[in-house]
Amino acid sequence: MADDFTVTPWEVSGDIDYGLLMERFGTAPVDDALLRRIGRHGEIHPMLRRGVFYTHRDMGWLLDEYEKGNRFVLYTGRGPSGQTHLGHMMPWIFNKWVQDVFDVPMLFQMTDDEKFLFKDLTLRDTKSLAYQNALDFVALGFDPAKTRIILDTENISTLYPIALKVAKKVTFSTAKAVFGFDNSTNIGSIFFTTIQAAPAFLPSEQQGRQVPCLIPCGIDQDPHFRVARDAAPGLGYPKPVMLYCKMFPGLGGGDKMSSTDEMGTIYTTDGPKDVKKKVGRAFTGGRVSVEEQRRCGGNPDVCAVHKYNYCLFESDDSKLSETADRCRKGEILCGECKSILTDRINAFLESHQEKREKARDVIDGMAFDGFEWVKG
Amino acid sequence: MADDFTVTPWEVSGDIDYGLLMERFGTAPVDDALLRRIGRHGEIHPMLRRGVFYTHRDMGWLLDEYEKGNRFVLYTGRGPSGQTHLGHMMPWIFNKWVQDVFDVPMLFQMTDDEKFLFKDLTLRDTKSLAYQNALDFVALGFDPAKTRIILDTENISTLYPIALKVAKKVTFSTAKAVFGFDNSTNIGSIFFTTIQAAPAFLPSEQQGRQVPCLIPCGIDQDPHFRVARDAAPGLGYPKPVMLYCKMFPGLGGGDKMSSTDEMGTIYTTDGPKDVKKKVGRAFTGGRVSVEEQRRCGGNPDVCAVHKYNYCLFESDDSKLSETADRCRKGEILCGECKSILTDRINAFLESHQEKREKARDVIDGMAFDGFEWVKG
Repeated sequence: MADDFTVTPWEVSGDIDYGLLMERFGTAPVDDALLRRIGRHGEIHPMLRRGVFYTHRDMGWLLDEYEKGNRFVLYTGRGPSGQTHLGHMMPWIFNKWVQDVFDVPMLFQMTDDEKFLFKDLTLRDTKSLAYQNALDFVALGFDPAKTRIILDTENISTLYPIALKVAKKVTFSTAKAVFGFDNSTNIGSIFFTTIQAAPAFLPSEQQGRQVPCLIPCGIDQDPHFRVARDAAPGLGYPKPVMLYCKMFPGLGGGDKMSSTDEMGTIYTTDGPKDVKKKVGRAFTGGRVSVEEQRRCGGNPDVCAVHKYNYCLFESDDSKLSETADRCRKGEILCGECKSILTDRINAFLESHQEKREKARDVIDGMAFDGFEWVKG
Repeated sequence: MADDFTVTPWEVSGDIDYGLLMERFGTAPVDDALLRRIGRHGEIHPMLRRGVFYTHRDMGWLLDEYEKGNRFVLYTGRGPSGQTHLGHMMPWIFNKWVQDVFDVPMLFQMTDDEKFLFKDLTLRDTKSLAYQNALDFVALGFDPAKTRIILDTENISTLYPIALKVAKKVTFSTAKAVFGFDNSTNIGSIFFTTIQAAPAFLPSEQQGRQVPCLIPCGIDQDPHFRVARDAAPGLGYPKPVMLYCKMFPGLGGGDKMSSTDEMGTIYTTDGPKDVKKKVGRAFTGGRVSVEEQRRCGGNPDVCAVHKYNYCLFESDDSKLSETADRCRKGEILCGECKSILTDRINAFLESHQEKREKARDVIDGMAFDGFEWVKG
């Protein structure tokens, strides 16, 4: 069944039909006209060109404002429930590109409160994970002068008054319909969406004028921002503008990389041997035997290795399609592709892990309002 | 119908049957044994002796702990939705007595967030009202060295982590049953009870041990603290101990003084003429004519003037019952009682208003964590 899938901030399951999801959520496609318009400001990022970031809300308005000189604030975030993996990194890498091309400030929210409420974790756990995750974010090179990291429980005095304003506009009925809550949901989880809305409105609140906000993130976050967007006009804030990406796939072939599948997940702290082992076991579009594959060719469309190249590890379009063609013709075998991907991931991680260590030197200065990290 | 009344933190209506309410809520009566036990520590306050504070939860345990040397923290509060009236002052006066007799620290919570969520008020309104209300509280003479005033939006960084822990333990189902919420309730109102629970657990959280907490307040607050008490053991906090008073009656004869009945409400800032006018119009147990009253006597049991003497303005039991007797016999008329009460209230207010002005000098030092009041 084509619509037998679930995409919410807390559950992504089934085979996602991204076209149908766009219809369900009522978001607009990232089309050629939009790409051309973005292209006026800088070279189009591969994730846009290839439809990884594929759907949006109000990007046209955002660019109108930007071109009139009304700069937006960039906002994305992370729920610190475990170590960072490549699935988390993908939209952050894109956000870094947006910051560079449009030269805009960035707010990065770490929802330690959310993960405490929704997971079997203590607040100490989620705060400590927030630091680990933030190191990966900072390592990507966001401008320390223009980027602030919000940690919910540490910056709650700033977020709470805005969250209250949002909360006053949102009924349980709405929360139930949007998130699928029921009578057994805890009352913190019900309230939480207002905290995720708050950073989108923070620049407007602080500057006392309508500051546009762009939120590039996974499409699973749309329920939160539908609520935030509905509440915005009544509070005198502009509706946050959304730019959504597809989920980063797991190596096992699933639609979303997830820590529940340890072997299908590459963490930013993995060593070369971990990567080799994990990529070695990846789901591909290969045949049952070398002979059959040489004869009939493989299927890159279902191949996790190909998806990794597509999303993150091969920015050259012609090389990407050349490899896919050679796969279809049986000219290249899975072992070879896996070996190339392993090298690429390891090269990326080696460099990233160095930057991650250096991030420790600048991360304190990026804490919103100068809060102190739990580094232990 | 005896049970045709409603008592929740946001609605008090109908003729309250306080005995039935105690049964409904499952609280224990303040009986002679408890009074004798409290009496070992100081002279019993008239509000206890007369059953104004008439029901409790776990006072026996609190006194056990106190007598073993485990001092409790006193906690009560105010929702700043309007100017302070005598109905608010009554339980605060009692709290002052508790602080004096047991020599304990006090937390006073001002729920500016609650009143923003539940009323047609801005956060600026509720913060500014909080200052006005707090002046009345401080004027009662709480020990500035031992008393801290919490203003929710200002102290949220302290309250929020505790509120989250409570929230994780409370389902919407429970909130619905306890407070009568439905699908149209806003999600801030649903979450709010966790913020009111937080100060009760704050001393335990800060000291890292089980610190008993006594909350003397109106019985309409019991729904909040039922939820807090249920959550406490699972969080390693002691259940807060409750001591509940009846509602302070309106001058119009209603069960609760309320700002919606302007003429039945005496504000702490009222002048002598306001008081004279308001008391002059009070509902009494008088007869239709002076002649009939001289002949048949009045009924002090339904008389607002008598209730005011009973609750606040005549601490001498024999004088109180003597006046009631004289009323029943027709020896004293309503005008006389009103005139005496007017003088008493005005004497009280004159002195209170002086102390209220002086409160401005000490109130800054009583702000929890030194927040800044909105004084405008």
